[in-house]
Amino acid sequence: MKQIKIGLIGFGTIGSAVYSNLKKNSSILSANLGAKVILKSLCDRDRSVFKGFKINKKLIKKNAYEIIDDPEIDIVIELIGGIKPAKDFILKSLKNKKYVITANKALLSVDKKEIFNVARDNGVAVFFEASVLAGVPIIKVLRESLIANSVRSIKGIINGTSNYILSAMHDKGINFKVALKEAQEKGYAERNYSLDVDGHDSAHKLAILSSLAFNCDIKPNNIYVEGISNISHYDVEFAKEFGYCIKLLAVAKDHKDSIEVRVQPALLPVRHILSNVNEAYNAVYLKSDLARDIFLYGQGAGGSSTSSGVLSDVADAAGCILDKGSLKAYQVNAFSHSKRKIRPASQIESSYYVRFMAVDTPGVLAKISGILAKHKVSIASVMQKSRDRVKAVPIIMLTHQVKESDLNNAINEIDKQKIIMSRSVVIKMEKEG
Amino acid sequence: MKQIKIGLIGFGTIGSAVYSNLKKNSSILSANLGAKVILKSLCDRDRSVFKGFKINKKLIKKNAYEIIDDPEIDIVIELIGGIKPAKDFILKSLKNKKYVITANKALLSVDKKEIFNVARDNGVAVFFEASVLAGVPIIKVLRESLIANSVRSIKGIINGTSNYILSAMHDKGINFKVALKEAQEKGYAERNYSLDVDGHDSAHKLAILSSLAFNCDIKPNNIYVEGISNISHYDVEFAKEFGYCIKLLAVAKDHKDSIEVRVQPALLPVRHILSNVNEAYNAVYLKSDLARDIFLYGQGAGGSSTSSGVLSDVADAAGCILDKGSLKAYQVNAFSHSKRKIRPASQIESSYYVRFMAVDTPGVLAKISGILAKHKVSIASVMQKSRDRVKAVPIIMLTHQVKESDLNNAINEIDKQKIIMSRSVVIKMEKEG
Repeated sequence: MKQIKIGLIGFGTIGSAVYSNLKKNSSILSANLGAKVILKSLCDRDRSVFKGFKINKKLIKKNAYEIIDDPEIDIVIELIGGIKPAKDFILKSLKNKKYVITANKALLSVDKKEIFNVARDNGVAVFFEASVLAGVPIIKVLRESLIANSVRSIKGIINGTSNYILSAMHDKGINFKVALKEAQEKGYAERNYSLDVDGHDSAHKLAILSSLAFNCDIKPNNIYVEGISNISHYDVEFAKEFGYCIKLLAVAKDHKDSIEVRVQPALLPVRHILSNVNEAYNAVYLKSDLARDIFLYGQGAGGSSTSSGVLSDVADAAGCILDKGSLKAYQVNAFSHSKRKIRPASQIESSYYVRFMAVDTPGVLAKISGILAKHKVSIASVMQKSRDRVKAVPIIMLTHQVKESDLNNAINEIDKQKIIMSRSVVIKMEKEG
Repeated sequence: MKQIKIGLIGFGTIGSAVYSNLKKNSSILSANLGAKVILKSLCDRDRSVFKGFKINKKLIKKNAYEIIDDPEIDIVIELIGGIKPAKDFILKSLKNKKYVITANKALLSVDKKEIFNVARDNGVAVFFEASVLAGVPIIKVLRESLIANSVRSIKGIINGTSNYILSAMHDKGINFKVALKEAQEKGYAERNYSLDVDGHDSAHKLAILSSLAFNCDIKPNNIYVEGISNISHYDVEFAKEFGYCIKLLAVAKDHKDSIEVRVQPALLPVRHILSNVNEAYNAVYLKSDLARDIFLYGQGAGGSSTSSGVLSDVADAAGCILDKGSLKAYQVNAFSHSKRKIRPASQIESSYYVRFMAVDTPGVLAKISGILAKHKVSIASVMQKSRDRVKAVPIIMLTHQVKESDLNNAINEIDKQKIIMSRSVVIKMEKEG
């Protein structure tokens, strides 16, 4: 049986899971692949991480370049994350004609085009299934299963931390801070949670998915991003009463003349299949011209699921090596296509949920609705409830389809009124499908 | 650019969709593949099917063997369905060293091992993504994305017709016959609907999925099959009151010592993600050791979605040809592995929903529950409602975990009692996950 030799850089949660699971399921992988995958060497900046694993000491290298420059290594797996030195490791590995596997979404979201160009120039390829949704095979589905499709849209819940928080707020009626604490206690949120709840982790992943789907190079700074930290338990509760739940959605749509790419909280009808993605689960809903609807769901994070994605990449890279370096066009040409125009958020039309916090005096509703009408914002439903013994009363309105810029102008004018107690909250409503 | 020449046998709903969509998305496919796919010839027993399509007459062959025996053809696509002559066409194509693509679940469910052996002996491969769930890539995910996983279980809603009927009964409170008629009117049920509602179409698909997942050769007659035609609107309604919906589930589980494979109606908690698979949609929930949960959902039937699956197979087969006939082990060795024992349905333990139709007299409940207790069947909930002015009263019981054989013995004894007006209905309850 032929042998494929791999080197592993980074031995944290994911790296150690790749090590353990490759060992555990080695016979499954080699039977399915028709070749034996040998872990030849590994390294981590922190040598203490190897404690507790029975690893032959000869395999552990002091320096990543002992792996990258080893002529016997066929595949380098980069699992240290971040930009530096990960990018240097990847580029040098490619220049040494090694296949690279990475789960580094922060790096790929920005530098994917450069990295893929270097791979192509050196006759090798980069695999990155685990960079988005861990072991849920969204990259393979986009590249291979939809190979003859024109992708129309992507809608996803692609950050487990924020989904855990919003699910807990919805199910238990708790507020953001309590839900965040719970997520931290259960290990779903890191101490530094801002990348997750501010939407930037979702934007990294959406940059990769939308670039693949639409054959272009969308970067995180092309994406309109809003986080969930302003969502109050009021909003979750009112949304529920209207038959909706609030999710942090990553959305990309091809409008032909331009591409819409955004990460923001949204109201989804409770019967929508994305509304049933709870706790730390992730999911992506794809629409394309031939396959129509495809929905993928699973554990989009964690060592075990991510190691499954990394090992499927190992099989694909090994396949290329066994085929004597034969590469498919989709493995080589990703992200190199023509530039696409990004549609400004202000031009996007949608319905919206709006919560005003107003003083409880006569004429308030007339004032608010008058200003909305002036800005061509038409109202579909209104709900007003005296909930507390405080002066501020929440007034909830669901609008009809409106241009975001018109709504923003109206809200800005309303928020200047004396009757308004605090900044109004606006959340997009996502249509069915 | 290299050329791959294909021949298409069968020009019905799916064949014509493959033709039209290959034409429409030809440039997308060739850009992603790095080769041009040329439809060199096609045929159908019924020449009238080509009317309305602008096809160069030279491409249309009178006889399938003009395609199968054409040395220029690289890939033969079989889309006529059924066993004869499809099997002969496929075997002869393989013996002529052509790659074969088929969506023929009835044939593969029975003869997959023989067909794959002939392919292997001739150094080619058979691709069959569209045989299960059309364009939803369940075959690719099982073979490639989970290549390093040990699959634990498969739960699926894999027949659109029966799912449409059950969804309509649930949502609209209509009975089976009315729902079936609606499904026929909307084109979701054929005039001959028995294969769909009796569970046999699901069993064909489950035979393929479970054989792939567990590396063995499970045939439809290894699978315990129950259809949905005995499900009454009573059952749908009572299930709903208990917080469940009824779905026709295909289930395969690896119990190490044996494999459980069955198709039967089941009660699912309404919050289960499979409960949100409505109308003619299909879905499969996979559990495996590394990736854990993966859920795939989409349009599991119809020309458009099926053509997407066929064209992804074209790309994969073309990939092998471009790699000069290099095949992965999983493309060659499927279904050839060791025999596995099938667990008899009577040994499966579960909770059950039972509906008795009894006369409305005192002592009925005592009689029924006495017999259940004698057979060690323990009751979790009871519901009794006088619904009609007829004598028969439905008594609903949800049991605790019980062996199916014990429950069946109890039901047989109960159904012999004079107080029982008609045969009792037993439906399995599916646990969360």
